[in-house]
Amino acid sequence: MTAAARLKTPGRRKKGFLLVAAWLSVICLQAAPLAWPAQNLRYADIAEKIRTSGLRTEYAYELLKKLTGSGPRLTGSAQAAAAVELSRRMMTELGLETWLEDVTVQHWVRGVEDAAILIPGAEKNSKLRISALGWSIPTPDSAITAPVLEIRSFDELQKAGPEAKGKIIFFNHPMDRTVSDTFRAYGEAAAYRARGAAEASRWGAAAVIVRSLTLRVDAFPHTGMVQYDPRFLRIPAAAIATADADRLSALLAKEKRVEMRLRLGCQTLPDVPSANVVGQIRGTDLPDEIILVGGHLDSWDLGTGAHDDGAGCVQAMEALRLIAELGLKPKRTIRAVLFMNEEFGSSGGREYARAARRKTEKHLVAMESDRGGFLPVGFGVGGSSAILDRLKTWEELLRPSGILWFGPGGGGSDIGPLAAQGAVTMSFIPDSQKYFDYHHSALDVLDAVHPRELELGAIVLAVMAWVLAQEGI
Amino acid sequence: MTAAARLKTPGRRKKGFLLVAAWLSVICLQAAPLAWPAQNLRYADIAEKIRTSGLRTEYAYELLKKLTGSGPRLTGSAQAAAAVELSRRMMTELGLETWLEDVTVQHWVRGVEDAAILIPGAEKNSKLRISALGWSIPTPDSAITAPVLEIRSFDELQKAGPEAKGKIIFFNHPMDRTVSDTFRAYGEAAAYRARGAAEASRWGAAAVIVRSLTLRVDAFPHTGMVQYDPRFLRIPAAAIATADADRLSALLAKEKRVEMRLRLGCQTLPDVPSANVVGQIRGTDLPDEIILVGGHLDSWDLGTGAHDDGAGCVQAMEALRLIAELGLKPKRTIRAVLFMNEEFGSSGGREYARAARRKTEKHLVAMESDRGGFLPVGFGVGGSSAILDRLKTWEELLRPSGILWFGPGGGGSDIGPLAAQGAVTMSFIPDSQKYFDYHHSALDVLDAVHPRELELGAIVLAVMAWVLAQEGI
Repeated sequence: MTAAARLKTPGRRKKGFLLVAAWLSVICLQAAPLAWPAQNLRYADIAEKIRTSGLRTEYAYELLKKLTGSGPRLTGSAQAAAAVELSRRMMTELGLETWLEDVTVQHWVRGVEDAAILIPGAEKNSKLRISALGWSIPTPDSAITAPVLEIRSFDELQKAGPEAKGKIIFFNHPMDRTVSDTFRAYGEAAAYRARGAAEASRWGAAAVIVRSLTLRVDAFPHTGMVQYDPRFLRIPAAAIATADADRLSALLAKEKRVEMRLRLGCQTLPDVPSANVVGQIRGTDLPDEIILVGGHLDSWDLGTGAHDDGAGCVQAMEALRLIAELGLKPKRTIRAVLFMNEEFGSSGGREYARAARRKTEKHLVAMESDRGGFLPVGFGVGGSSAILDRLKTWEELLRPSGILWFGPGGGGSDIGPLAAQGAVTMSFIPDSQKYFDYHHSALDVLDAVHPRELELGAIVLAVMAWVLAQEGI
Repeated sequence: MTAAARLKTPGRRKKGFLLVAAWLSVICLQAAPLAWPAQNLRYADIAEKIRTSGLRTEYAYELLKKLTGSGPRLTGSAQAAAAVELSRRMMTELGLETWLEDVTVQHWVRGVEDAAILIPGAEKNSKLRISALGWSIPTPDSAITAPVLEIRSFDELQKAGPEAKGKIIFFNHPMDRTVSDTFRAYGEAAAYRARGAAEASRWGAAAVIVRSLTLRVDAFPHTGMVQYDPRFLRIPAAAIATADADRLSALLAKEKRVEMRLRLGCQTLPDVPSANVVGQIRGTDLPDEIILVGGHLDSWDLGTGAHDDGAGCVQAMEALRLIAELGLKPKRTIRAVLFMNEEFGSSGGREYARAARRKTEKHLVAMESDRGGFLPVGFGVGGSSAILDRLKTWEELLRPSGILWFGPGGGGSDIGPLAAQGAVTMSFIPDSQKYFDYHHSALDVLDAVHPRELELGAIVLAVMAWVLAQEGI
């Protein structure tokens, strides 16, 4: 019972009550735990056991070492197929009930990639570090050679208009450093990576290169998807390392005309069958009600997808392992799902939700970790404010493991489709400051992950899953 | 005015008031900002300006590059003396009013360091990575060669008793991985580094080596102070890398008798004069009331003290720069203090407080950043719960920069002496998960610091200093 609820108790009209009300108001500001049901004390005890057991070893990190050891897991690749088998085996070894669920996935392959700045009449010829964007069409075998036009915003492109014709458009729109939530900065700047090719093609551009989406100035292209528009010709699209974007921009400011030679050998092949990987601990009382903890198994191909989203996958597995290891038997089913193909259109998330509807499974809550294996700080929660308030009553359970707030949010491309079927979606939020240093680049490897921070995320998900499996929502 | 205060307003006795009271209780649970004085909206605006301006560049990181560029800053060393001049110049260049305050400091120097495992009768001879502890006496020139006795706790030493005589005691007490607050784990395990030599000498041991205080298994000794006890002979003391501690422990489990040869050339030289470095923005209305932001300028000599405590020093400077850059004129004086000699006995903090008393300066608040340049998460606050409550009303101002809580705590060896003179002490708390990966070792260098996390700390200190300079406490 909350302090506010107590205030509504009828039959008390005494003047002194005003003081009690004032006192309760003070209490409710300061000491939520005082209002805890006895139940929460038991949960606090279990939360501590989970935390202690998790931090004792680097189990999540060891799982991640195994998973990233199989290399990058690009949707449709042989390595992704191997990762399906490997991760299922890993979950079986953890004692979970496991199975695969069919997903049809896209199959895009990267080929030769080569770009150089050419300055006519000069000897200078300088390589640029680029990587094709996912879905990009290839350039002709002979490459595209064209003048470069630097564009900083869609407004600027609109003004340039016909000037873009035949050129390689260089979208040099940096992420906004001044916002503390780097995902907000990413969301805004990602429009140029996603829609840049279509917008440039509208004006007859030959190709686009896009400044990599990272706040660091580094030598590594950070790739991602391009979204073509059926109304306009598809043109080749690639990301350029931020250090090279700065160099190219400086050169464009100095020289009247800068040409670039761009060669991309990427291709889209026919779709292939793949799978979501599922492991679960069956509920004792309400086995048909499911608390889902997930991440996505596929990754980009430049690193090994350690943060994106190897971290989410191993945290989901480790959360279930931590619960099982303590011999806890949840009332409701706790399920780990490693979704396939988040990066190339989220067919895994959609197929999973479709199958769940077919099987009339009831997902109460779906949590996803897809923001890297960094220090836990919060949970973004979809659904009503009543649900948010309910979750907030358990905040203190997670505080020693780092979680300091529940706020509006939720969603996520893999679990989003389950929201339409009534699931509360929760997005696990770790510290965002370093995520884009690694994201979609060759830097996203095991070494970039800290064992304890990764483990704390798994602990938080385990505690949350346990409480939800006992209490429902 | 808080919701609770409003409840006490006299002259309202209507039944409907109960509902209002209930409603206010709900509000106070959810939306502290609704209860904010108009003043706080102005502060929120300034906090946003400070945050935006800070995150736009990597100014704190650039300052840190400059500071660590002069090398390690071991108390009493020529490099520490150079850092005094350099950091004063840096603060002058930032437009601050600067001066030095005399401090007498200890002068201990590291010499040759060499340790090897010897197994009599075998060819094996294996180097160990060690570093002398601060204050350690040297070994004789010819080194100490003695059998090794592994000890895991003071209880175990007590039991071994006379068995320790003539031996090199190997304190192999790891930090407790299972607590999420790594400083708590450090505090417990540091007893063996600090008091191990005295406790072993009590039983006639020849020397001690101590497992390094880090949660990682790595190849780097993490040094720190040893505290001798005047009742017992001083014996040489060194830290051993955790990887070597594990190796040595495994060997001791296998072999009946393991000898070690230990040579330390460290020496204690006569005290030398040094200084605290001070920079300030004078208050317009109450210049004699001081809000202090500090770190310590000295560091250990194995790395370049980037986190410990270069980070704290540049955050203090950067906090004042951020305020000055916006053209803000504080009512009270805001002062950055870079304390000398935290690591070798905190004479800088003591001398600073003594001088302040002599000058009858009034320090309202003293904040210190000495837990590394990681993501901000909280403030530990000394003083009454009324002060803590007052600070909590400003929590929302710091939330976008990462600070999520104010809790009991405060203190810190540099600012502690000011508490005795009535100052509220506040300890800036960043994420603690990685601090001991670097602490007191060769790994504590610029590369280990993240520019945005470092800057967020400076931003938080700037906002806090500004509000306190305007409001007092």
